[in-house]
Amino acid sequence: MAIITLTTDFGLKDHFVGAIKGTILSNLPEVDIVDISHAISPFNIQECSYILKNAYKSFPKGTVHIVGVDSELSPENQHMVVLVDGHFFVSSNNGVISLITSEVSPEKMVEINIPNTKLGSFPVLDVFVPVACHIARGGKLEVIGKSFDNLKELKEFEPRISNNGKSISGNVIYIDNYGNVITNIRRSLFEAYRNGRDYEVIARTNRLRKIHESYNGIINFDLDKPQRKGPGDALALFNSSGYVELAIYKSDLNSVGGASTLLGLNYRDTVTINFL
Amino acid sequence: MAIITLTTDFGLKDHFVGAIKGTILSNLPEVDIVDISHAISPFNIQECSYILKNAYKSFPKGTVHIVGVDSELSPENQHMVVLVDGHFFVSSNNGVISLITSEVSPEKMVEINIPNTKLGSFPVLDVFVPVACHIARGGKLEVIGKSFDNLKELKEFEPRISNNGKSISGNVIYIDNYGNVITNIRRSLFEAYRNGRDYEVIARTNRLRKIHESYNGIINFDLDKPQRKGPGDALALFNSSGYVELAIYKSDLNSVGGASTLLGLNYRDTVTINFL
Amino acid sequence: MAIITLTTDFGLKDHFVGAIKGTILSNLPEVDIVDISHAISPFNIQECSYILKNAYKSFPKGTVHIVGVDSELSPENQHMVVLVDGHFFVSSNNGVISLITSEVSPEKMVEINIPNTKLGSFPVLDVFVPVACHIARGGKLEVIGKSFDNLKELKEFEPRISNNGKSISGNVIYIDNYGNVITNIRRSLFEAYRNGRDYEVIARTNRLRKIHESYNGIINFDLDKPQRKGPGDALALFNSSGYVELAIYKSDLNSVGGASTLLGLNYRDTVTINFL
Repeated sequence: MAIITLTTDFGLKDHFVGAIKGTILSNLPEVDIVDISHAISPFNIQECSYILKNAYKSFPKGTVHIVGVDSELSPENQHMVVLVDGHFFVSSNNGVISLITSEVSPEKMVEINIPNTKLGSFPVLDVFVPVACHIARGGKLEVIGKSFDNLKELKEFEPRISNNGKSISGNVIYIDNYGNVITNIRRSLFEAYRNGRDYEVIARTNRLRKIHESYNGIINFDLDKPQRKGPGDALALFNSSGYVELAIYKSDLNSVGGASTLLGLNYRDTVTINFL
Repeated sequence: MAIITLTTDFGLKDHFVGAIKGTILSNLPEVDIVDISHAISPFNIQECSYILKNAYKSFPKGTVHIVGVDSELSPENQHMVVLVDGHFFVSSNNGVISLITSEVSPEKMVEINIPNTKLGSFPVLDVFVPVACHIARGGKLEVIGKSFDNLKELKEFEPRISNNGKSISGNVIYIDNYGNVITNIRRSLFEAYRNGRDYEVIARTNRLRKIHESYNGIINFDLDKPQRKGPGDALALFNSSGYVELAIYKSDLNSVGGASTLLGLNYRDTVTINFL
Repeated sequence: MAIITLTTDFGLKDHFVGAIKGTILSNLPEVDIVDISHAISPFNIQECSYILKNAYKSFPKGTVHIVGVDSELSPENQHMVVLVDGHFFVSSNNGVISLITSEVSPEKMVEINIPNTKLGSFPVLDVFVPVACHIARGGKLEVIGKSFDNLKELKEFEPRISNNGKSISGNVIYIDNYGNVITNIRRSLFEAYRNGRDYEVIARTNRLRKIHESYNGIINFDLDKPQRKGPGDALALFNSSGYVELAIYKSDLNSVGGASTLLGLNYRDTVTINFL
């Protein structure tokens, strides 16, 4: 059964997502529709890019991903389909898949051009859904439009190396459900520059001496609870997506707070790793 | 495969939605269950009515829609099934489908009356789910109860025409995920009274001279970004559901604000169109 | 078709839930994946336990339930599969299913031990998903690990009986989407001690003389609206899950408030029933 995923900033209250699913099922009764997220901050390409990149790989090759963030057609934002890593992305050309295409070269890119399409305020329904259904049915990309190659990129995802390779300066690119703060520093970059040296992770006034493999990494389970670290303590780890993350152990943003509030780290703030 | 949709004010945290889906799957293993919304404001019939009306048409004829808002049985709110426009709605008789039945006459209406039904505090699970499964299996409405005809209506959705057809006064009926403000003034009503005249849209202290076809409609892409309108500017448009909507271009309610907060427009506030 | 449910504290914004669903579909194309909740308060075992207990029974026997709350492996929290009441629960041994196992004895319990498993910060994806797919395919529990029997329990769910059976003192264990306040006092316990006596329910300064069967129970529909109780009035009822609940009729937490805010009742607060 074909799979179509949805990643949008539509929220889950309005009728938008229901209308999209109804239209897909009307076109293609045998399909698995999977929500990746509908809670992207409105028009936030960076957030969308991070979420999409970390979710898409789990789906089988051939999956069609509809990306409905900042999707109105304009002279500056074409509608497109990109085939990359065996997955089809139907979106606007606004940088939303550039975290993926920066790692894997696209196999095909077409600009959507379907005669007599309604060009209103709901292009995900009017354009992306019929295109996605066409692909999910096994239709050819050539029918949808001509190939093009000027894919837009997001520049902000690259950390800076300085001090003769002794410092990596990154930025906060995402804050998750627990208030954990994700930087754009990838494990692979860290390993490439480390050369076996000790290091410190600096975020505002916080200094951490180790990047763990899991949240439990800071707990010494040989000690009794009062003697050991636990809920409320800060840590750095390589998260499951391969990025350096700053976290508070067992945090809850809505009660005690999370890394974003307790360490005072916001989107775009700097996090630095110094090799010693 | 039969489709059952869910529109409720249950939220997505509690066990209610999970219990409903489990019960449907226990009764009817081959079914597509689609969430339209579970984030209706509690007991808000107007919101529910707007969302339901704009979502249901996208689904195939024969779809069964469970509407779980204000659904406790009482002498004033019967349980019912209404067949209208080829769709089945299982709900309370509280006005929740009146935006649909005001445009299309119902084909059949039955009051649910099933012997030995538990009459507790979770009628969506105890009554609506078995009824919806019965219909989704192809069962007859006659088995569920007797036909009736006193469908409740919501009166608040009608704008007022005044000044010899020179003014249309509507109200805010919905505020969406972006803070965009939707009025009860339909494009068809606007066109019926316009007669080629210029017009202005008045909302509190704001005056807009054009109702666009899309959000991008206010942007002149021939100009450079600093010279043209963009994020933060107000506009009116006919939204994808055919209503006059007031919006802020690329708004985000949680950061910079949206039309509701920036234009100071709340649910039920007046929006007027004057023909000049 | 096999059913796998998901109950987590991951929220619906991040990529976690999408990645889980993609991985399940990659492993097992024919499966119904049902969200029970992803909005558990982070690391809140009690909330998760209440939601899970009230949702699981609606699903068919043989359903596999993935429970992703506080699921990192540690010397104190093993990964396990418990077969109880015909349902399979894949979770950490942290008390999260103890509301279920306190009523029905488990049939089988195994500690998950799969060679070469990644032990990182996303065990739900790396461990629970492959285990759940194995079970959903009809695989044996013996393959997953050895049986064990030291299941952790939550103690806080038991009310106290005092005053020679004249008083039941319980606690608030859950606050729902409407702000309704659910106590740990079960109807069966109430009935066991009542012996036909009158009673009062005391919560802070509120005293209620009747526990209703539905929210409508407080309304006398023979009276005109201004003369009768209605929105804003407090009541006690046996909720659909069999617990004593304090509610405000037709409450909305985000506007007028709910029982939690209007009666001033928080998680763990005491509610007492006195037999007169």
